[in-house]
Order: sequence, then C-alpha cells, then structure tokens
Amino acid sequence: MAAEGYEGVLVYFGCAGWLKRVYKKVEHEVIEMVKMTKSVGRDPRRIIHSIKVALAITLASFFYYFKPLYDSFGASAIWAIITVIVVFEFSVGATIGKGLNRMIATILGGALGFGTHYLANLCGDKGQPLILGALVFVVAAIASFMRFFPSMKARYDYGLLIFILTFSMVAVSSYRDDEVLKLASDRFLTIVIGSFIAVSICIFVCPIWIGNDLHDQLVNNVENLATFLQEFGAQYFRSSQGVEQVNKASMHKYKTILTSKQSEESMANLARWEPGPRKFGFRHPWKQYLNISSSARECAYRVRVLDVYLENNDQIQIESQFKEEFLRMCKESAKALKEVAMAIKKMAPPALASAHIERAKATTENLSSLLANHRFEGLEMIPTATLVSLLIDLLCCIEKVADCTRELGCVANLRRGESLGAVVPAADQDLINV
Amino acid sequence: MAAEGYEGVLVYFGCAGWLKRVYKKVEHEVIEMVKMTKSVGRDPRRIIHSIKVALAITLASFFYYFKPLYDSFGASAIWAIITVIVVFEFSVGATIGKGLNRMIATILGGALGFGTHYLANLCGDKGQPLILGALVFVVAAIASFMRFFPSMKARYDYGLLIFILTFSMVAVSSYRDDEVLKLASDRFLTIVIGSFIAVSICIFVCPIWIGNDLHDQLVNNVENLATFLQEFGAQYFRSSQGVEQVNKASMHKYKTILTSKQSEESMANLARWEPGPRKFGFRHPWKQYLNISSSARECAYRVRVLDVYLENNDQIQIESQFKEEFLRMCKESAKALKEVAMAIKKMAPPALASAHIERAKATTENLSSLLANHRFEGLEMIPTATLVSLLIDLLCCIEKVADCTRELGCVANLRRGESLGAVVPAADQDLINV
Repeated sequence: MAAEGYEGVLVYFGCAGWLKRVYKKVEHEVIEMVKMTKSVGRDPRRIIHSIKVALAITLASFFYYFKPLYDSFGASAIWAIITVIVVFEFSVGATIGKGLNRMIATILGGALGFGTHYLANLCGDKGQPLILGALVFVVAAIASFMRFFPSMKARYDYGLLIFILTFSMVAVSSYRDDEVLKLASDRFLTIVIGSFIAVSICIFVCPIWIGNDLHDQLVNNVENLATFLQEFGAQYFRSSQGVEQVNKASMHKYKTILTSKQSEESMANLARWEPGPRKFGFRHPWKQYLNISSSARECAYRVRVLDVYLENNDQIQIESQFKEEFLRMCKESAKALKEVAMAIKKMAPPALASAHIERAKATTENLSSLLANHRFEGLEMIPTATLVSLLIDLLCCIEKVADCTRELGCVANLRRGESLGAVVPAADQDLINV
Repeated sequence: MAAEGYEGVLVYFGCAGWLKRVYKKVEHEVIEMVKMTKSVGRDPRRIIHSIKVALAITLASFFYYFKPLYDSFGASAIWAIITVIVVFEFSVGATIGKGLNRMIATILGGALGFGTHYLANLCGDKGQPLILGALVFVVAAIASFMRFFPSMKARYDYGLLIFILTFSMVAVSSYRDDEVLKLASDRFLTIVIGSFIAVSICIFVCPIWIGNDLHDQLVNNVENLATFLQEFGAQYFRSSQGVEQVNKASMHKYKTILTSKQSEESMANLARWEPGPRKFGFRHPWKQYLNISSSARECAYRVRVLDVYLENNDQIQIESQFKEEFLRMCKESAKALKEVAMAIKKMAPPALASAHIERAKATTENLSSLLANHRFEGLEMIPTATLVSLLIDLLCCIEKVADCTRELGCVANLRRGESLGAVVPAADQDLINV
C-alpha cells in the first residue's frame, strides 16, 4: 500500500511536471506569436489589406446569398469568389496585372479550347479523344515553354498559366459535357465580375500604389547613402573638440540597397500596370528608376568597403590636416546625394548637385597636393592613400547617380509637357526613348 | 478618267508599300521570336519541363476520356487537371511544396468551412447568411494577415491562399448546395490525385532538384571569384615577358553574385521540401549554404571595387617588385578560393585552403615591408597603397568564406554520420544546431 501510494505521488508529480513544461512551452509560443503579430502589424497597410481582401470576398459571396443573383449564375458563381481570392494582391499594380491576365487568358484559352473541341468532333467517336489528347499535349507544352521567355515571365506568367488551365478545362471537359459553351461563358462572366470587384476595392479603398513604393524606396536608398557619408565623416574625421553621438543604426541602413535589385525590378514591372490618377502617368519612365537604382547600388558597394575598412582599422591615426579635407569631402558628397534624393522626390533635375560634386572634387585636389607634399613614416600613408582612392571612386559613382537622376527629371518633364500638349524640343526627343 | 486611273495607281502603290512594311515587320518579329526561342531552349531542361507538364495534363485528363474513371468522379475530375497545372513547377522542391500546401490547406479549409456551415445552420434561415458572412470575413482577414508573417510567407504562402479559397468555397456554397460534403470530398480526392500525378512525373521523369542547382550555383560563384583574381593578376601584375590573353567575359562572371541573394534564399526555401534520394538528405544544412553565399557576396563587393578601380586607372605604374608580390597574392587567394569551391562540391572541410591563405598573408607582410622601405615620389604610392589595403581586406573575406565552408563540411559530415548511426562527439553537437 505504502509503495502504491509512493508510486501515485510519483505519477502525480511526473504529470504535474509534464503539464508545467507544456504550459511553459505554450506560453512561450503565444508570446512569440503576439510579438510577431505586433511587428507585422506595425505597417498598418497590412491590416488594411487583410480587411480589404475579406471585404471583397464577402461582396463576391452575395452571389450566393441573394436568390436573384444565384439564379442567374448558379454554381458558376463560385468562380467569382475564387477569382477575388486569387487576383487580390497587396498593390494596385499587381491586382490589375493579375486581373487583366486572368480575363484575357480565359477568353483566349476558352476560344482555343472550343476550336479544339470542334476539330475533334469532326474525327468521329474513336478519333475524338486521340485528337483532343494530342492537341492538349502540344498546346500545353508550347505554352509552358513560353513561360520561360523573359519578356513573358516578367508580365504575363500568370496569364500563360491561366491560358493553359482554361484551354485544358474547356477542351477536355467538352468531351463529356455538352453544355460546355454555357458553362464557359458563365465562368468567363463570373471571372470578369470577380476581377472587377477585386480591382475596384483595391483601387478605391485605401489603395496601395506599388509605383509610390518604388519611388519612395529609391528616395530612401539615396538618402541612406547620404546619411552614411554624414555619420561616417562625423565618426572618423571630426576633430576631437566637437564630439557628437553617431547613430550606428541609421548609418547602416544603406545595407538594404546592396541586395534590393530583384525586388526593385519586380516592383517596376508591377508599376507599369498602374493607371495614372496619381502623380505618375501610365508611361512613367520606370526603367530610368532602375538605372538610378543600379548606380546607387554601385555607390553602396564602395560604401560597404569603406565601412568595413574603417571598422577593421579603427586604431588608424590620420593627421588632422587630412581629416579636415576628408570631412569636407564627406559632407559635400552627402549634400550632393541629398540633393539627388530631393530631385528624385520632385522628379526634377538635381540643380545643386553638380555644385556640391564640384566642391567635393576640389577637396580631392587639395588632398592630392597634401599627400604629394607630406612626409610619411613607414606604413603611415596606407590608410590615408586608401581613403583618398575609395572616396574619389565613390565620388565618380555619385556623379553617375546624379546624371541618371538628371535624365529621369528631363524625361518626366517631357512626359508632363506632352500630356499638357506642349511641344517637345527635337533635341530632347532621344531622351524619351530611354 | 485619267485622274481616277492615277488615283488607282496611287492606291495600288500605297497598298503595296503598306503591305511591304507589314511584311517587313512580321518578318522581323518572327526572326526575333526564333532567336528568343533558341536562346531560351539552350537549357534543354526547359524543353523537358514543358513536355513533362504536357504529359501530366494528358495523364490527368484520362479522368474524362475513360468512362469508368469519369463515372466515379464526374465533373469534379476537372480539379485533378487544375491541380496538375497549378502545382507543376520547374523543380521537385517547388512542386512538392505546392502539392503539400494545396492538399493540407484543402483539408484544413474544408473542415473549418464545414464547421462554419453547421454553426450557421443553428441560427435559423435569417441568421444563416449573416453568421456565414461574418465568419468568412473574420477568417479571411486573419488568414490574409498571416500571409505577411515572414516564416509563413517563405514556405506556406500558397497554402494560406488555398486555405482561404477552400474555406470560402465550402462555407459559402454550403448555403445553396446540400450535397456540399460529397462535392468537397470529391474535390479533395481529385486534388490529392492531381498532386500525386504532378509530383510523380516531376520526380520520376528527368527530375530537376533545386538543391542541386543551389549547390552548383554556390560552387560556381566561388569559382568565378577565383577566376576573377587569376585573370586580374594576369592582366595587371604579370611581368611584360609573359603576355597572356585575358578572358574578360569569364573575368566578369563574378557580377551575378552581387545580386543573387533573393534568388538563393528562395532556392534554399524550396530545397527544404526535397526528399533525400540524391546526395543531399532531408535535413541538409541549406542555411549554411546561405552563410557561405553571403560571405562570398562580401568578397564580390571588394572584387567589384578592385575591378572598377583598375579599370578607371589603367595607366597606373606599379613597380615590378610590388607587381611580383601582388601577383603571388592574387594567385594564392585564387587557389584558396578554388580549394573552397572544391570543398563545397564535396561537402568536406577545405583542407588546403588555410595553407594558401597563410601564404597569401605572408605576401601581404612582404608587401608591407617593401612599402615601408620604399621611397615614393609625389602621388606614386596611392595606387600601390590602395591595392594593398583592398587585397588585405579581400583576404579577410576569403578567410570567412573558408570558415563557413569548414562549418558546412563539419555539419554535413555529422549528418552523414548520424544517418549511418554513428555517435556524434559531444563537443561537435552545437555545430548541428547551426
């Protein structure tokens, strides 16, 4: 009895311990989940997007709730709900792109599917599945291959998928279903309605324009480069009397530029679907944005090397006469970049950037003459010489960013002029084709 | 009459000119298309993939062609075709990921949809659409929001979409359709069959493993860095007697590394779905690949700066004693990188890399003492000092790549040991958690 009681106590404590561990684990998971939700929800647009999606689905499901609507489409109404869910994306550009792709591909795929159906019908009962199978095979293979074409992949990948889907559905199901024409036309109509609901809610309820995002991201990228140069100058070249706190976090924001190429390219592709009720038009020169972005990325590579070089060699002594020139150079380069960022923001040529770049160039000349006349001991000159080379190299890159921005400003001005009916000067015509 | 004849001639020539222009344009388009097709088809795996997709669709459409199969599923068989088309991706990992996501999400969404249906049924005829609408709204909003969670987005984005889709379909259509349970179970079964067809053909007919692709790409990336250093040394530091042709194209292959981060991350995510019949197992340390890749990218930033620096300053005179040391340093660094590439290929620690890195470090010491004892005139020392700094910095990065590769080798060895039932030494246990 005593032994049994002892075992019971053991089991009790064993269970209690196990329950406690499970409780702790669940508590930990819940806390993690809450933290994650908070951090994801910090961007209120995500919450708004989720509500918009739910709203669009609810709207589309009225096809079921209201008898008159249900009577006209029947079970095909489910395609409206499916379309809303599949087409609704975060940004207006992506939603319009998917909606148009889906509608056009459904029409084309459906039409070709019918053609195949009639062709197969001519071949009698035995030949029909053979002809159908062969044609579906060939069309599916060709369309799948076309999805690899870069120009197709960028904008019409989803359309090609839906084309294969609709074509196969219509062609194959026509073999068993005689009412396939009615079904397909109902399906097309409900897809149009679903796309319309998705696109309307996406545009008219707190729209998120991917073009704006790309624009802001580019401005931020250039500003982050400027911030780096400012803080970098303050950290390494400020004379000892003026001690200022350096903000490491904002200094390292430039790192996102290093790897942003793919996301920017896809943003530019999506932005091309967006209509022009906002500040950008349909023919906004998004390609020029990518040019600016790739020259900003070249700056970022130099900045990265500069950053790590001084982080690894923080005991470096640089003489104060050089420090002053370096500080001036960093300041002028940062000002030029800020000017460029402002110009991108306004889509105008960066008027004052060249002046800052010229001043920065003047300091490089001062630095060169200081270097030429200075007597260094041993290896002393390595860091100074390296910094001079890297900063001159960076300045070249900054100049390229300014040039690209100037082109963007000119093209944007021309476009604006065109849309106002102004005459485009012949000499600037080639800029439009950039 | 004469005037009419004249007009007729004009119209004729106008038409002829127009036709000629159209013909020229069509000809140009066709030629472009053929060129594009050739360049896309240069990778035979794309052609094979297209044929595999067509084959899978044809297989799935037997549900229509064969009467016994059609009788058991009826029109629900269309979901097998849809599933095949939507799930079939280029790589095995992506196809399995999508197939599993689709199947699990369909089951979960369907079950929750039924729950909602029964709950709404309890509220009488008038309350039913209200409760249905409210629940669909809330679930859709929450699931849409969860798609923003980074951990969800990486692997379960498609699953969440299909969850919303199935849940809405079942919950909403249950309002009108009493046979919804039969329909949903048929749909689930056909989706399982469709996924099964897609995954089987993807795995058993010329499979394309994304894990292999990631592995090869990483090896290539490191090899391209080595090639750059080799050719770079040959171009700038070889003494004049040994003139060798430098291959600019292969020298610049390193550029792809600069912007490959996003594609590599998505490849690693997809590779985690792949089972282990090939050389990698289910628990292959793909994360470690990304570590190696990001340290290789840090090398690439330095290489980029080096590349452009010497391109811009190709008139630089470097004294022959420095040239020799630079050449040796480039050669040893390149050898170390080649060793690392080979080690990644074999998934073993890079045994000889440290020796090459040590030798490269010795040359940096030689360079330092040469620099310290050399008398430079004016600005002569800038390029030499800059090259020394950049190459030392690059060497640090190469060392990090070698360290990451060593970790990969250890982890891979441990995994192999585990799967053979070997005992893992306690001291190395923490490596497994990398």
